[in-house]
Amino acid sequence: MEKQKTRIGIVGYGNLGKGVEEQIVFNDDLELVGIFSRRDPELVESHNPVFHMEDLAVMQDKMDVLLLCGGSATDIPEQAPVLQEMFSTVNAYDNHAEIPHHFDRLDEIARRKKNVAIVATGWDPGLFSLNRLISEAILPKGETFTFWGKGVSQGHSDAIRRVAGVKYGVQYTIPNEALIQGIKAGEDVAYTKTSSHKRVCYVVKEEGADEELITATISTMKDYFAEYETEVHYIDEATFKKDHSGIPHGGHVIRRGKTAEDTQAIYELHLSLGSNPGFTAAVMVAYARAAHRLALEHNYGAKSVFDVAPSYLSPKSAEQLRRELL
Amino acid sequence: MEKQKTRIGIVGYGNLGKGVEEQIVFNDDLELVGIFSRRDPELVESHNPVFHMEDLAVMQDKMDVLLLCGGSATDIPEQAPVLQEMFSTVNAYDNHAEIPHHFDRLDEIARRKKNVAIVATGWDPGLFSLNRLISEAILPKGETFTFWGKGVSQGHSDAIRRVAGVKYGVQYTIPNEALIQGIKAGEDVAYTKTSSHKRVCYVVKEEGADEELITATISTMKDYFAEYETEVHYIDEATFKKDHSGIPHGGHVIRRGKTAEDTQAIYELHLSLGSNPGFTAAVMVAYARAAHRLALEHNYGAKSVFDVAPSYLSPKSAEQLRRELL
Repeated sequence: MEKQKTRIGIVGYGNLGKGVEEQIVFNDDLELVGIFSRRDPELVESHNPVFHMEDLAVMQDKMDVLLLCGGSATDIPEQAPVLQEMFSTVNAYDNHAEIPHHFDRLDEIARRKKNVAIVATGWDPGLFSLNRLISEAILPKGETFTFWGKGVSQGHSDAIRRVAGVKYGVQYTIPNEALIQGIKAGEDVAYTKTSSHKRVCYVVKEEGADEELITATISTMKDYFAEYETEVHYIDEATFKKDHSGIPHGGHVIRRGKTAEDTQAIYELHLSLGSNPGFTAAVMVAYARAAHRLALEHNYGAKSVFDVAPSYLSPKSAEQLRRELL
Repeated sequence: MEKQKTRIGIVGYGNLGKGVEEQIVFNDDLELVGIFSRRDPELVESHNPVFHMEDLAVMQDKMDVLLLCGGSATDIPEQAPVLQEMFSTVNAYDNHAEIPHHFDRLDEIARRKKNVAIVATGWDPGLFSLNRLISEAILPKGETFTFWGKGVSQGHSDAIRRVAGVKYGVQYTIPNEALIQGIKAGEDVAYTKTSSHKRVCYVVKEEGADEELITATISTMKDYFAEYETEVHYIDEATFKKDHSGIPHGGHVIRRGKTAEDTQAIYELHLSLGSNPGFTAAVMVAYARAAHRLALEHNYGAKSVFDVAPSYLSPKSAEQLRRELL
């Protein structure tokens, strides 16, 4: 008898939801039941079934796990508690300061409803958090450094697009490679938020706009650019559309620690992602598998990436994993 | 009331056992009860209590976890089943082909005796295995590449020391950096065991020995060097002792996968270790903490790194981990 597939619902159909839709076909043990949107389903273009959010209430026996793909600013805090009453869920909620509260709230519901919530998956929070934990536990005498990029910062890109004279704009966060090399070489480094990254902007200006003025306005923008080394490059619209339409991201988590007084160890996770939402979706999909298994084992409640044994992420059996990957 | 410390015993006092001894002092929640050796305790030099292996039988209520630091060739297969009858254990058994059998054997004993065995910790097997699993689960459509080094290969170093005319010798395995860069760049690469590494030897020759003959003998040694790009460098004894007494190692696990048909993601774990046994010991120590917690929760049996939720590695509470690291 064929093993039953884990049945998935996608809630929210922006970049992240579309990423999940693309990932699921790479996983033979998972099945996409439908996409759930606040919009009129007739207006949502997908080759998969699309439903209205309100249909979820009558489809509780049709899906094992919902992947919550809305935004962290308002969608997830609003939707997650409501949907947790009906389903096991996985999200990539990334409001670091609010995660403990969010976790506790879903934990109460999930225990009461006997389902599972895996919160704050993705890569930061998510895989980066996991590697901070593991490397700190192994090298307690040490320091952890995080670098982001090269990647598009949505917030900073929005900020430059609000500058007068800017038609299109994108901002890449670039880690300070010299600092990374210095850390790995065991040097004393001055790691600050502003020394660790530079900000590189590509701008298509409106016709007749003044480049010097735009550059000055961007470079002196407080909290966004003023404290950083900032570059502004002007390009034409065709180049912008060709070279700057993607949403790449990534980064490094580096733990530098001692295994003896005079002996250094460097532990580094490095991600280089062609698509930030695409990879975040891929992580969510693996944790969806874990959520379903935990629920089948009656291991209810909220979990973070810290609480899930790695074997739960894989479709392979424990024996197969030991034989092939250990 | 102060939380009770996890009480550790070290079995075997070579490089690995000494590494564990050095690590434990970095961990406030762990306590070293003693070192257990087959040698006469009087002849073992340590500032910690040393006992004979035979004393273990009467010290079952004195320790929570034994860290098995003997060799994988004969010590671990012989000792682990015997000691598992009395204690929870952690080992870094690295005979990949034999791990499934070893796991099953300890699993039967641990379930029967209601204790825990965490097998094949360390970094390969161990952390490398863990990252192979996680990255494959997240990027099922992709390939995994492992590179070892720069690091000392004990087997190859032994082999060159057996060559006539060699007084001292050490062999470093060096990963092919061009191949690594090609993989990350998304190129089609010819990754084979022999193309992925080169072997660099440092030799102090006996007086009057023939360098050309030594180099030829080493370079043509079947299975060890003949299939690889091999370099042999001659140095004097003082330089050898100054620059080549350490046991550095490390390597890369790289998963190259797709998050969409035309979108690549690179996941890379990179370790650069001043001391191979020192870091292996550090990993074992973190898993000793996990073994004790699993036993306290009556979660008995054999486990690998795949089966242990990451939070078990840290001395921090679940709430603290979410607040500080997620």
